[in-house]
Amino acid sequence: MDEIRSRLRSDDLLAKITDPEDVVRKIIPKRGSIAFAGMAGTSYPKVIPRALAEYADKLGEKFDLIVYSAGTCGVDHEESLARIGIRRRYPFGASAEVTRRLVNMRSYHVTDMWLYEYSSWLRRGVFLRKLGGIDVAVIEVTGFHGDGAVLGLSVDATPALVDAAEKVVLELSIAKPYLYGLHDIYATRPGDVIGIRDVLDRVGDSVLKIPRSKLAAIVISDLEDQRGHYTAGGGLDVKVVENLIDFLSKEVSNDPNLKSEYFTLQPAAGPIASLLADKIIELDVDLRIWGEVASVRWIRHLGDKVRGLSSAVIFTLPGDEKLREYLYENINEIRRYAVLRPYEIMNNPQIISRFIHVVVQQAIEVDIYGHANISHIGGRIYGGVGGSGDHAKPSYLTIIALPSITSRGLPRIVPVTPHVDIVEHDVDVIVTDQGWTDLRGLSPIERAKAIIDRCAHPNYKDLLWKYFDEVIAKREGHQPVDLIKAYEFFQNFSKERS
Amino acid sequence: MDEIRSRLRSDDLLAKITDPEDVVRKIIPKRGSIAFAGMAGTSYPKVIPRALAEYADKLGEKFDLIVYSAGTCGVDHEESLARIGIRRRYPFGASAEVTRRLVNMRSYHVTDMWLYEYSSWLRRGVFLRKLGGIDVAVIEVTGFHGDGAVLGLSVDATPALVDAAEKVVLELSIAKPYLYGLHDIYATRPGDVIGIRDVLDRVGDSVLKIPRSKLAAIVISDLEDQRGHYTAGGGLDVKVVENLIDFLSKEVSNDPNLKSEYFTLQPAAGPIASLLADKIIELDVDLRIWGEVASVRWIRHLGDKVRGLSSAVIFTLPGDEKLREYLYENINEIRRYAVLRPYEIMNNPQIISRFIHVVVQQAIEVDIYGHANISHIGGRIYGGVGGSGDHAKPSYLTIIALPSITSRGLPRIVPVTPHVDIVEHDVDVIVTDQGWTDLRGLSPIERAKAIIDRCAHPNYKDLLWKYFDEVIAKREGHQPVDLIKAYEFFQNFSKERS
Repeated sequence: MDEIRSRLRSDDLLAKITDPEDVVRKIIPKRGSIAFAGMAGTSYPKVIPRALAEYADKLGEKFDLIVYSAGTCGVDHEESLARIGIRRRYPFGASAEVTRRLVNMRSYHVTDMWLYEYSSWLRRGVFLRKLGGIDVAVIEVTGFHGDGAVLGLSVDATPALVDAAEKVVLELSIAKPYLYGLHDIYATRPGDVIGIRDVLDRVGDSVLKIPRSKLAAIVISDLEDQRGHYTAGGGLDVKVVENLIDFLSKEVSNDPNLKSEYFTLQPAAGPIASLLADKIIELDVDLRIWGEVASVRWIRHLGDKVRGLSSAVIFTLPGDEKLREYLYENINEIRRYAVLRPYEIMNNPQIISRFIHVVVQQAIEVDIYGHANISHIGGRIYGGVGGSGDHAKPSYLTIIALPSITSRGLPRIVPVTPHVDIVEHDVDVIVTDQGWTDLRGLSPIERAKAIIDRCAHPNYKDLLWKYFDEVIAKREGHQPVDLIKAYEFFQNFSKERS
Repeated sequence: MDEIRSRLRSDDLLAKITDPEDVVRKIIPKRGSIAFAGMAGTSYPKVIPRALAEYADKLGEKFDLIVYSAGTCGVDHEESLARIGIRRRYPFGASAEVTRRLVNMRSYHVTDMWLYEYSSWLRRGVFLRKLGGIDVAVIEVTGFHGDGAVLGLSVDATPALVDAAEKVVLELSIAKPYLYGLHDIYATRPGDVIGIRDVLDRVGDSVLKIPRSKLAAIVISDLEDQRGHYTAGGGLDVKVVENLIDFLSKEVSNDPNLKSEYFTLQPAAGPIASLLADKIIELDVDLRIWGEVASVRWIRHLGDKVRGLSSAVIFTLPGDEKLREYLYENINEIRRYAVLRPYEIMNNPQIISRFIHVVVQQAIEVDIYGHANISHIGGRIYGGVGGSGDHAKPSYLTIIALPSITSRGLPRIVPVTPHVDIVEHDVDVIVTDQGWTDLRGLSPIERAKAIIDRCAHPNYKDLLWKYFDEVIAKREGHQPVDLIKAYEFFQNFSKERS
């Protein structure tokens, strides 16, 4: 109790402590809308979702909820949500097979969205006018400082969700330490001129102000984040990252922009991002990280190779828990070089376009002209688009990094991708385990040749050249496409794909 | 000669006047690179391209040029370029059938690009490092003021092209009046915080500084811009605009953001834009235009319904010449409400994302999930993407407005578009002659239903519902796609399409 008292620091906050089941019974509507903060398996609500699921099971009756998520939460979170009764959900950020299955069965409606637009819609009342207000927002905090809440390791859409909600329920994490000083909380407004010119410039508050009239309850959480969406990289990922470093090394020596103080890196999520954090020291350049999410591995280089890090989340992959412990124990040192901010800053085109921003983005597949599919396998959604386009569009350089084949040996370089999330005009470089190709300034035909030649897996090169010869080489048109022959390409391994 | 003297205002500039053929013989390399300013058929070079073509014809030998264009020029310009010998061209901005034919025959390499990125690549040396420098930039000016050139009615990428070029050739237009005072010329740099909060805020110079060491020649041009890419709207376009006004009226009364001083409209190019400029007075709201291009028709409402207009170009459709005359004769009045700036400002996500920016964008076709194809008919390029994505991505609201069928009666709402330029995540509303649908917050299945139901042409609804029933309703998957059945859809009218 001393620990809790030291985190909350006031009697009226202590008086808000509520049993999770009481929160579920008294505060969360049977039919209504609920928001959950948390991203990249980090600082997502763990107590209330479980209590909701248990209550629904006990009642033998489901809720009827619109769920606003902030991003990809833990598997435990998703498994609880699968049991409660969802009508509609924004955006898609599933870490769990159960959620993918429900969404692909169309058990409820899901709209995937860019995370910058998601925050903007919350701020500008778009959801409010379309669907009504958010009844309750549930967020993890690590304590209070003055009249403001101190967040955990993810800021994501939390401030926008809290501002849009009528009531707020806090999960006070005592599994995490009190993380005061890491955050820079800012609410965007139309007409804003946001003067951030360095990744460490701060423009907001170190705490999240929550009006006491909204603060409905505090529940105590001794649960640490569980394994999330991302996994450590496998064999091909290592080759991808080697090729990525090879490309970046050449670029750093040729392009003076990358020597500038405005050079920033969005290292993306996923295994490649984590491996990149290990290999990046090979580059002969100082780095500044400006990322939607960032692996805790980056903190090893803070103040040294990495001059500063700004992110909406610092996430921890299995095996990296010791680095998170190091972070927890050295907040005062690390906050000099790292800052956590909401998507509305991290994914804000106003700021990104100001930097020499280099984006590394993973994809499910790319087509031979350079369109990238981030989200779907065939018609089935696999991962959300997150803020990929928020960074890829206003960036200086967008690199799509992916293995040339899936773990089951299927091709990721394809004639036509049935789902496009990032268009060819925004893709500058493609890197696979086979090599890299710089597409800037190439015509569509040149791009197709370069991608097949440098990036495709040897097992599929013949099929891709066959498509190229039949559809492109022999026909007119600036950018020929043949849906039938693209389909036939997939038919060669349709059993494995389906 | 008095007119020319009054425009150039100095003897050393008068001494630069050169015969066009001499420019072609002495300044433009046989093998090298050349840039032409001009956009939306406005203030594009007219004398030098013709002289180049005549010289190539006379010589019986083609040049071997990389051509950097700033956008869509006049048909005369394109017809000259078709005769000179091009190796490579950036971006695609064809107004003329001859250019489309050459590009679709792949007579030379073309890379279509977003116009903001195009300017950035010029500024940051990307083209320089990939392809070498630009030997000569040719631009239209209307005179000099102090040491700076006064541009015409298009600023487009002119400042970036001039800064990137080793030599500059001016076409001094005496067909246009001296247009001093309309322009705000600004060169973006990394780290820039550009403080524009109102469409009329000026941050740059009223003239374009050109180092005298670069200024190779001035040729005199008495040619006015010829008919460009865009045409006045036909029957279906009128219905599209009526439906667009219907949607906007409802939105203006429901969404307080559109009553704010930060509400800006990008009216897009093309027939719908011009018709919109006529109908917009029906909206119960003050407007500010922030457009890549803007029709001269908007000037009728300046200071009244339209509080201000900022654009990279003011273009004139056939029939609107009297409005251009009015503009020419009332520069001092109009400059109080209108400003012309380069793409690097007009298409800058830093500024666009600050506004409540509503984008009206035409498209060749949209698919039933909302992806928009701006550029291609099948594999053949028809129009460039321009800055469509520059505005659609950071906008508050992106409206795709298009007739539900082509002039030949073929469908523009299709199951799958073989070319995606603007992804579903960036498309908020679709408007056709049949109606409009607001897609915000809808799941893919809901979007497909809404688009077919509200926007498709009656002649194609059965075929689209058939696709929906067979591919979507009966299958699992968040967003099912069937390339074969999409192909079969097109097969129903393949003869007309090909």
